[in-house]
Amino acid sequence: MYKALITTVPFGDKDRLPIEILKENNIEFLINPLNKKLTEDELAEMVADFDVIIAGTEPITKKVMDNASNLKMISRVGIGLDSVDLLEAEKQGIAVSYTPDAPAPAVAELTIGLMLTLLRSVQLSNMEMHKGKWHRFFGRRLSEITIGIIGLGRIGTGVLQHLQCFGSLQILLNDTTPNHNLDKEFNIKWADKETIYKQADIITIHTPLTPQTKNMVKKEQLFNMKEDAIIINTARGGIINEQDLYDVMQAGHLSGAAVDVFDFEPYDGKLREIERCILTAHMGSMSVDCRTRMEIEATEEVIRFLTDQSLEGVVPEEEYAVQREGL
Amino acid sequence: MYKALITTVPFGDKDRLPIEILKENNIEFLINPLNKKLTEDELAEMVADFDVIIAGTEPITKKVMDNASNLKMISRVGIGLDSVDLLEAEKQGIAVSYTPDAPAPAVAELTIGLMLTLLRSVQLSNMEMHKGKWHRFFGRRLSEITIGIIGLGRIGTGVLQHLQCFGSLQILLNDTTPNHNLDKEFNIKWADKETIYKQADIITIHTPLTPQTKNMVKKEQLFNMKEDAIIINTARGGIINEQDLYDVMQAGHLSGAAVDVFDFEPYDGKLREIERCILTAHMGSMSVDCRTRMEIEATEEVIRFLTDQSLEGVVPEEEYAVQREGL
Repeated sequence: MYKALITTVPFGDKDRLPIEILKENNIEFLINPLNKKLTEDELAEMVADFDVIIAGTEPITKKVMDNASNLKMISRVGIGLDSVDLLEAEKQGIAVSYTPDAPAPAVAELTIGLMLTLLRSVQLSNMEMHKGKWHRFFGRRLSEITIGIIGLGRIGTGVLQHLQCFGSLQILLNDTTPNHNLDKEFNIKWADKETIYKQADIITIHTPLTPQTKNMVKKEQLFNMKEDAIIINTARGGIINEQDLYDVMQAGHLSGAAVDVFDFEPYDGKLREIERCILTAHMGSMSVDCRTRMEIEATEEVIRFLTDQSLEGVVPEEEYAVQREGL
Repeated sequence: MYKALITTVPFGDKDRLPIEILKENNIEFLINPLNKKLTEDELAEMVADFDVIIAGTEPITKKVMDNASNLKMISRVGIGLDSVDLLEAEKQGIAVSYTPDAPAPAVAELTIGLMLTLLRSVQLSNMEMHKGKWHRFFGRRLSEITIGIIGLGRIGTGVLQHLQCFGSLQILLNDTTPNHNLDKEFNIKWADKETIYKQADIITIHTPLTPQTKNMVKKEQLFNMKEDAIIINTARGGIINEQDLYDVMQAGHLSGAAVDVFDFEPYDGKLREIERCILTAHMGSMSVDCRTRMEIEATEEVIRFLTDQSLEGVVPEEEYAVQREGL
């Protein structure tokens, strides 16, 4: 009987299907009993005799794999692979699959909600109103401003699509490999990141976390942004340096920010002091439909692997190259 | 020299043009020194020798007009006319203009922001995170749910348009006079209000305040809604009964609500106790562009009136009929 460790939580919460799939296939499973994102040490201790990890974003490092002598497969519930040491997995002959399409619609929709909330100071008015304080905040509409999108993969492109029904917009895009098909479909301009920092009123980041994007937005970049600009990170913790974002906003720069992803989760850091910084608990992919789809896809992939069927979500060679070459 | 009382606040705050227009035309003006929405008595006292009111949503009643022997014109900064006794104005020969188009884009955009915020519990996660509490809320995407729009004037239609870039949606519409041109352009169904209360997961109201819509949504309607449904009012205070909304949410019904407009403003009532009810300070029209356009249009209309030019924003006969016949 194979054994699967499910580290991502919640799991099977809104839809029991992934759990039933495991049961039907006689796979013994354990759902992360700590009910939080595991540290490297916690995972290394927990993983000992499992064949498979159905994984969240916790670090799956050499140390973890060395402690898991039966481990044959990692099935990531989600898209980012920064948490998995792919090269070590390759060396140890551990297969890695992921679900890159499933979370995108939920993250893109949340991002639009954060944009509109920040542009109209809804969270500030809501907090004040609940304290009995009435102040009519001025806001801005999407068509009044310049929008910058950094990273045009599945999620960034989704954001771009949702924006199309808000009138004629000024949109600046940046990606390491610009997809010029977007030029035909949308009224956009490609720009370097420095131009976006300087000109955009709202910037949203949709890159993966790589050595190149780690700390991509530091004090210098934040201070280059307009004084009343807004920045949103629903991608990965650490792309915007958290301490720098705190320092810059504490100094009065930027009119708002939204951060859904953090260096260490659960987050309990200093951005809590900044009221105009919206904080959410890594909820980008947490719509019932997307989360369920991610869990089912990741579970079905485990079954395929353990029953020698061909896999559908194998991590492509490019992702290994990113870690190999630091691309 | 003519004298204008500007009751709506803020005024000329982000763009000084409306104030400059008044000065250039040698119109003496007073901006509401109480800096809040006036009561009938406060306005009656303040209005004595003014020729014109550049008005917000404060009550302009017979008592107010009787106290304003010079009053010749009311220029409403905005769309709703529930606050103006049109029949009394007609009787006293007072012209009434308004700016029905200007606020619509800002209200529609705010409404989409409130929908997405409520569907993902952003305001709840934000509050908890600022207290150091990490909980990943499940949410829903627009394409997973049924959306009900009651009132398909300028704003409701704007909401419908913005929704089109969020995938294939289930949308139910209700209006006293359904505009069947919308059927051709959008994938929608017309339904009676009872059906919308029962079937919709999110309901947004965009009707004017009339004797028919006052208290349109009471306890009965709210309890007819699904237990996890969401209701949004960016239209006018009193369309959803505030006390009933409080009682129903206090009883655990509805997963969320957003209220931007209140019976009495500034609002300081019991909905403050309900964390899953977003409260904002009548900010629907408060985008810089829409607010500026409203103020400029209302001011230019005053100049036209006082210089005997033909008016562009005269309140149409239908609005008088609404008050005459309670239609």
